Amino acid sequence: MDYNKFYSADVPSFLKSPVREIFRAVDLSNVCSFAGGYPAADTFPVAEMPALTARVLEKYGTRPLQYGATQGIPELCEVIARRYNVPVSQVQITTSSQQGIDVCTRVLVDPGDIVLANNPVYLGALQSFSSYRAKVVGIEDYLSQAAAPSCRPGKPKFIYVIPDFNNPSGRTMTLQEREELVRIARELDVLIVEDSPYRELRYSGEPVKTIRELAPERTLHLGSFSKIFAPGFRLGWIIGPEALLDKIYTCKQCLDLCPPVLNQFLAAEFISSGALDANLVKTIDAYRQRRDKMVSLLEKYMPSGVTWTHPEGGLFLWLTLPPQVDTVRMYDKALARGVAYVAGSFFYTDGSHRNTMRLNFSFVDEAKMEPGIRLLAALVSGSEVPDIE
Amino acid sequence: MDYNKFYSADVPSFLKSPVREIFRAVDLSNVCSFAGGYPAADTFPVAEMPALTARVLEKYGTRPLQYGATQGIPELCEVIARRYNVPVSQVQITTSSQQGIDVCTRVLVDPGDIVLANNPVYLGALQSFSSYRAKVVGIEDYLSQAAAPSCRPGKPKFIYVIPDFNNPSGRTMTLQEREELVRIARELDVLIVEDSPYRELRYSGEPVKTIRELAPERTLHLGSFSKIFAPGFRLGWIIGPEALLDKIYTCKQCLDLCPPVLNQFLAAEFISSGALDANLVKTIDAYRQRRDKMVSLLEKYMPSGVTWTHPEGGLFLWLTLPPQVDTVRMYDKALARGVAYVAGSFFYTDGSHRNTMRLNFSFVDEAKMEPGIRLLAALVSGSEVPDIE
Repeated sequence: MDYNKFYSADVPSFLKSPVREIFRAVDLSNVCSFAGGYPAADTFPVAEMPALTARVLEKYGTRPLQYGATQGIPELCEVIARRYNVPVSQVQITTSSQQGIDVCTRVLVDPGDIVLANNPVYLGALQSFSSYRAKVVGIEDYLSQAAAPSCRPGKPKFIYVIPDFNNPSGRTMTLQEREELVRIARELDVLIVEDSPYRELRYSGEPVKTIRELAPERTLHLGSFSKIFAPGFRLGWIIGPEALLDKIYTCKQCLDLCPPVLNQFLAAEFISSGALDANLVKTIDAYRQRRDKMVSLLEKYMPSGVTWTHPEGGLFLWLTLPPQVDTVRMYDKALARGVAYVAGSFFYTDGSHRNTMRLNFSFVDEAKMEPGIRLLAALVSGSEVPDIE
Repeated sequence: MDYNKFYSADVPSFLKSPVREIFRAVDLSNVCSFAGGYPAADTFPVAEMPALTARVLEKYGTRPLQYGATQGIPELCEVIARRYNVPVSQVQITTSSQQGIDVCTRVLVDPGDIVLANNPVYLGALQSFSSYRAKVVGIEDYLSQAAAPSCRPGKPKFIYVIPDFNNPSGRTMTLQEREELVRIARELDVLIVEDSPYRELRYSGEPVKTIRELAPERTLHLGSFSKIFAPGFRLGWIIGPEALLDKIYTCKQCLDLCPPVLNQFLAAEFISSGALDANLVKTIDAYRQRRDKMVSLLEKYMPSGVTWTHPEGGLFLWLTLPPQVDTVRMYDKALARGVAYVAGSFFYTDGSHRNTMRLNFSFVDEAKMEPGIRLLAALVSGSEVPDIE
């Protein structure tokens, strides 16, 4: 039976995540994988979970198993509101930060609308924008197009940005850059979707004000429990103006009625008991070491002509290789010899920048880091090196 | 700041659920509520949860807290495939059955498309169809329109139906009705979305074949853990043809990457250990008693001219009152005197049938059932009766 005639007009724009497909197709457990964006499993509070579950069920009885409010359970909304110093009415709990991106796009974008973003762009956001047939345009490109008298580009609905420890680039926007972004948003009269899953994972340097703090009236700030607690809980939140949240609330009701309830109680208890902050200290220490190790290995092995970002937090480094290196074509060779990464061009809407790659340092087996980087360096410079075991 | 200019064209079609808004606005804990569709909290395996959690974490380590596969964890996909006798490749786990409805609609419907359904229709489905600007048309209406030579109604994409213990009507389709529906679907060449959250809650009578069993090539069958395990887990599944599931899979990746993982491990363990079936026996016994009690109270108190369905399963009864009774207008009076229900007209796309109401018998406090029904009967017949305490 041919099902093509049944599909909505959005379906041809659905993209599978190349990263998720890598994970689906290949058993990466024997590979040195710099590919995913997974947190290190040893940062998860597995040992605390049974007692945490027992405590939550004793305290709240059957509520964690029942339906909950669409906004999120009051206990979690209040904890988030306190932690980020906003009124509870400006908080919406989401079933993952990816749902946050999806619901914002659904509420704001029609087919053909422009979303502004700075290349390279987070894959999950690109997938979501594409699935609603939005056109993703670089901010600089848009501004230069808009300045040309002959050309009238469409009006953008929002600017999407990960200001802290960007996925994939690892970059953090300076205060000046954030202020400039807000100025542009106000001048264009567009909203800002500030995607902020890594903000609490800072290993060096000083925190910079969030964009929401600079422009609360036009910012939807997306937070996530995936990198600070457990991605398996699929919990995030949106902080934003109440009028916008009201539309997001109604949309969220259609999407899944309410976020998973037991998960919310566990997260609320984990935060309010102080366990989250204690766990964060350990996580940050572990990730700082991994970042430093990765940077020193790159310094040790990479040939001249290779550069990389030195992220102050988050999970990723971004490598720029000599122009003749094609990371898409190099990928199969690397995987066959035991190393996985994500080619940088996947994060560009036009598939350009084939001499770049994203390296994750949180999830990779620490013992494999050195042979992995050495192998990548050898592939880049064309020299001989043994396979990863 | 005026945000209206930012919204997508779908937003004006977003509807809030009147049922969820009732729960949001009023503290129903002191009320005799026949309103919600909540399962009885005493059917939840709260006592088993801490041991279940400990077992799952011991068995699977950090996996329940990590990201999972978009399809669902293999352990749960396999358990569902075995339980419903289908290949694993025909299973997609969803973050609630509401997400199942949403993702099917998103993959199949463009604005203006027709969805066929039989009035009265489940509110969550109406909300989802409306949010994509689909036009919901009754099957009979469509067929009679299509038969008229002058009129050419648009082509429908799918038929939406709850064949077992319908929400809200409580009705179950006979085998002949299902076969007729399949015949119509094949003749019109449309898909069928078979929403089946209550199927395992049968209190009397014999199971009828699912529509998926009659027409697997064109049916998307939606299942749910909400009524047989715990709605707070937000887990459901879709069984359907692989080609359709591939599009749903890709869409699901944009929606939230993967269903909540810990929840899936708990559900898989709960089923495969036999605990689900043991719990179902108890749940079915309890609900059968509640249904029988509700029916006998209606027989005892309702004046002549009132009729109701006698459901063989599920959570709902449907009342048809004398034509002069307006359940929308009666609602505030009933609530002020301590009884909540859902007016039947909310389930009609045209707001008609204002002399009907939906009564839930699973969640209402058993001690309040009798005074609640007595009060409703008095309001219907205009006689005096004391308020609920």
